Formats: sequence, C-alpha cells, structure tokens
Amino acid sequence: MAQLFGKVAIVGIGHIGSSLARVIKRDGLAGQLVALDNTPAHRDKALELGIVDAVTADVATAVAGADLVVLATPIGTYPALAQAMAPHLAQGAIVSDVGSVKMATLRDVQPYLPDGVHLVPGHPIAGTEHSGPEAGFAELFRGRWCILTPPEGTAAPAIEQVTALWQSAESQVEIMEAAHHDRVLAITSHLPHLIAYTIVGTATDLETTLQQEVIKFSASGFRDFTRIAASDPVMWRDIFLNNKEAVLDVLQRFTEDLTALQRAIRWGEGDKLQDLFTRTRAIRRSIIDARQA
Amino acid sequence: MAQLFGKVAIVGIGHIGSSLARVIKRDGLAGQLVALDNTPAHRDKALELGIVDAVTADVATAVAGADLVVLATPIGTYPALAQAMAPHLAQGAIVSDVGSVKMATLRDVQPYLPDGVHLVPGHPIAGTEHSGPEAGFAELFRGRWCILTPPEGTAAPAIEQVTALWQSAESQVEIMEAAHHDRVLAITSHLPHLIAYTIVGTATDLETTLQQEVIKFSASGFRDFTRIAASDPVMWRDIFLNNKEAVLDVLQRFTEDLTALQRAIRWGEGDKLQDLFTRTRAIRRSIIDARQA
Repeated sequence: MAQLFGKVAIVGIGHIGSSLARVIKRDGLAGQLVALDNTPAHRDKALELGIVDAVTADVATAVAGADLVVLATPIGTYPALAQAMAPHLAQGAIVSDVGSVKMATLRDVQPYLPDGVHLVPGHPIAGTEHSGPEAGFAELFRGRWCILTPPEGTAAPAIEQVTALWQSAESQVEIMEAAHHDRVLAITSHLPHLIAYTIVGTATDLETTLQQEVIKFSASGFRDFTRIAASDPVMWRDIFLNNKEAVLDVLQRFTEDLTALQRAIRWGEGDKLQDLFTRTRAIRRSIIDARQA
Repeated sequence: MAQLFGKVAIVGIGHIGSSLARVIKRDGLAGQLVALDNTPAHRDKALELGIVDAVTADVATAVAGADLVVLATPIGTYPALAQAMAPHLAQGAIVSDVGSVKMATLRDVQPYLPDGVHLVPGHPIAGTEHSGPEAGFAELFRGRWCILTPPEGTAAPAIEQVTALWQSAESQVEIMEAAHHDRVLAITSHLPHLIAYTIVGTATDLETTLQQEVIKFSASGFRDFTRIAASDPVMWRDIFLNNKEAVLDVLQRFTEDLTALQRAIRWGEGDKLQDLFTRTRAIRRSIIDARQA
C-alpha cells in the first residue's frame, strides 16, 4: 500500500488501537505514527513491540500536525479528549474513532472540532475478549465489517481516506447513519453482551460449591457466554451508558419474548418451544450463508 | 482396549449416538453393535458409514441379547421406548442413556425395567449444534466430562463397565445424584440455551431490512448465540419440558439480575455496571484455569 497519511495519532493503544497501529506499520500507511496513552505500561509496551514510532501522555504533542487522529479509548473519555485536542488540531486534519456507539461521537466530539477539521466516525466490527496493546494483531480486522458514520456534509476525500485505511486492514467498509448504526448494534452486540454479563453474574452469586461445578461443566453452553462476559469492563460500561435508549428498547422486546417462553415451559407447551427452536435454527443458516460464521 | 460387551444396542443413531458408535467400533468395545432408529435415512447412513454392524427399526430385534442398551433419542421418547424394550431385555443387561435431564431417566425408564437389569444413566457433556449420524465423530467426547447418575443400590460392576466405556471415549467420568445434576445443568446448559434461543428469536421478529443487517453484522456478539440456538429443536423442547422446576428457578434469578442491570442502565449507574463486568471477567479466568475454555 502507498502511504495514506503524514502523521497519524492513535489515542489509546489498547486492543483495537494497537491492532490498527500494526496495520498502519505493516502497510507503511503513515509517515509517522504516534500513540497517546495515559497508562505508562501501555506506552512502554507499544514502544517495546515496535508498533508505533513514538509515545506520549501529552495531547498537544500527540495531535499537533497530525493528518489523522483516531480515538480508540472508552467512549466516556470522548468529551474531555475532544476538548483537550481541539486547539492543537491542524487544518484539514481528519478525526476518527473506533467506538461502538456512533451517536456518542457526534454528540461528544463534533461540537469541539474547529472548522476545517473533518469528522469521520468509524466502528470496526471486530475484537476479542482480551485487552491491552499486547493483545492486538494486524489480522484482527481481516474479512470483518467497518462501519463509517460521517455526518451529513463531510468532505468526500476525508471519507475516502478513512475508507482506504480500513480497506488496508482488509475490512469491508459500509457507510451508515449513526442513529441506525446504534440501533443495529444494540441488537447484534450490546444486548448479547448485556445478557452474557447477566448470566455469568447470576452464576457468580451461587454458593461456592455449586459455582465450582458450574465452572467444571461449563462446556455445556455457559462457557460461550463467559468469553463474551470477559470483555473490557470500562469499555462496556460506557457503551451501555451511551446507547441507553436503543439498548433499553431491544431489552424490552427480549424480556417479553423470554417471559412468553417461560410461560410455555411452565405450562408444558412443547409445540411453542419447538416452533421457536426451529425458527432460530434457520437464522444460523443465514449467517453461515453470509459467511459471517 | 479390550472388548467390554458382547452385543451393544444404540437407540437413536444421531449426533451423539453415532459418535459413541464410532468410539465402540474404533476401540473394538463390542462383539456386535446394532443401531435402532425410526428414521430410514439415519439407518441407511449409519450402515453406509460402517459405524454399526446392523440397523433395525424393531425394538425387540435391537435389544434382545444385548449386554448394553444406550438410549440416545430425545428424552420425550423414553417412556414408550422403555416400555417397548422391557420384555426383551436380557438378564444382567445394562441400560444407559445420554440425555441431558437425569431425573427424567429415573422417572421414565426405571419403572419399566425388570429385576436383574441395571440402570446406569449417563450424560456426556459434549456436542455441537449439528444433528444426524453424519455429524458425529469419535473424538467428540475427548477431554470432556461424562456424568453418571446411577440410582442408589446399582450394582458396582455395571457402573464400572459404563465408566470404562466413557473412559475409552477419553472422557472424565463423574458420579453424581440425578437431582443435583439437573440443577447444575440448568445453570450451565439449559438456561444458556434458553437465553440464546430467545435472543435469536427476538431478532427473527424484526422487520426484514433490520434482520438482514443483524445477520450481516452478527460477528459483534450475536453470532455466538446463533450457534447455540441452532441446536436440535426436539431434543431441546424435551429438555425444557423435563427439567421444568430447575430451569424456572434459575430463570427467575436471571430475570431479577437482568432487571437490576436494566435499572442501572436507565439511571446511568456506571459503577454498578463496571462492578458486575469486572466480576464476570474473573469467572472466565477460572474456566481457563480449569482447562474447560
């Protein structure tokens, strides 16, 4: 790949930030790659891994002269970060992010950006339950979707540059409205995580002996939930706090459906159970057909 | 391995039954291996795969002279099967099963068995979302638990023979009371499946456009649930109908916990969310430490 940017600043060199840094390094996409991170251990590790050219804890140093700034920190940090970096952003710079709630980026970042700075929010649909710069890898985004939600009126070349970045990461890029993104992700990602956190939490409240057996026999289904429920706590706290309406709406539907199923079990309505279980099987087939399995 | 049994009859040559048949064949554990199945396609496939010596749709033919009969059909078939095979069981025969609810085996099979026939119910904690004889494989049970729940007074040699069978399948065998098994599995397996079926069901009720996007972006969490929710519909209908009390009890706990979490989101109580998400992460670590991940 040709160089896409002069200086790039990645804000937060954790699992996703460090994976993106590895892509940028591997493909020579930036003239200079700087990581901004508050955690000394993350800065040291990023340097040691050789995935960035420089590290800093100073916002001005990180973003000054950058052609692209990518926020890869929990969403709750956005307002303070946007405010701190705004005075130091270069004319024509692109600000992007990798957060899971796109209305939050519009609400918490856009108001602070000076004229002449382009906002192209992004969300790579990728990740594992691991955290930190050592957990990243360049292939994380391969074959996955990256959704961009530029506000109306965003300059086309800025969108194209961010698109090229994610295509270099071997992602498929999709442009979408932020509000629609948040509704879709509330179903595909936020609700599943909430449910997984809940069920694993329910198990942690069991008496000790029973809890040990739950761990021992977890391969029977529970295990799959624990992987999801091992995702980063602060990142997920911020997702739920910032996509409240969409999450509460889909949670309401889920609860109604669960209550109906509970009633079917109580009254021994086997046909209702079998009907649902047959319908859900078809959805799995669609996902396999869509090559997302 | 040495031969453990003369004639063995496997009732239901599906995913689990055929996997067990493959183990028995591979290790030469039986003098003769017969499959009883109502589905002609399953019988044909089992013969074609060479995983059994003979197939039949006749209960008497299958179990006559058998040293071991293993039920590997949905739990709902047990009463009729037990009744049909009882008059043809040999003195000293062992009857076992692979069902996910062990109280059901005691309730629905034990009353029909003649004196001198040994009941050793079993449950291999293994399986995939696939069904049918072609989906089985001998290594399915490797490194997994198999729980046996023999009723009080069961002859020790019968328990030892069934234990040896599962050890040959490379499973670790655990002896447990049936009621306790059903309570543990309600948490580790039945509730997770119920939740997964529900969430995938909720998604199938969405308008078509949104549903297509859910499939497209399923890698963000939803996908993991669809794998579980693709499990055999009849098998799972019977599990819920037959472990009603334990499932409803753990479901009640889950619903309370989910409601508390819903309230925390609504009121923006970030610390409560973060606390829970931190606790659930520790459970994942325990599962990795227990080598069940």
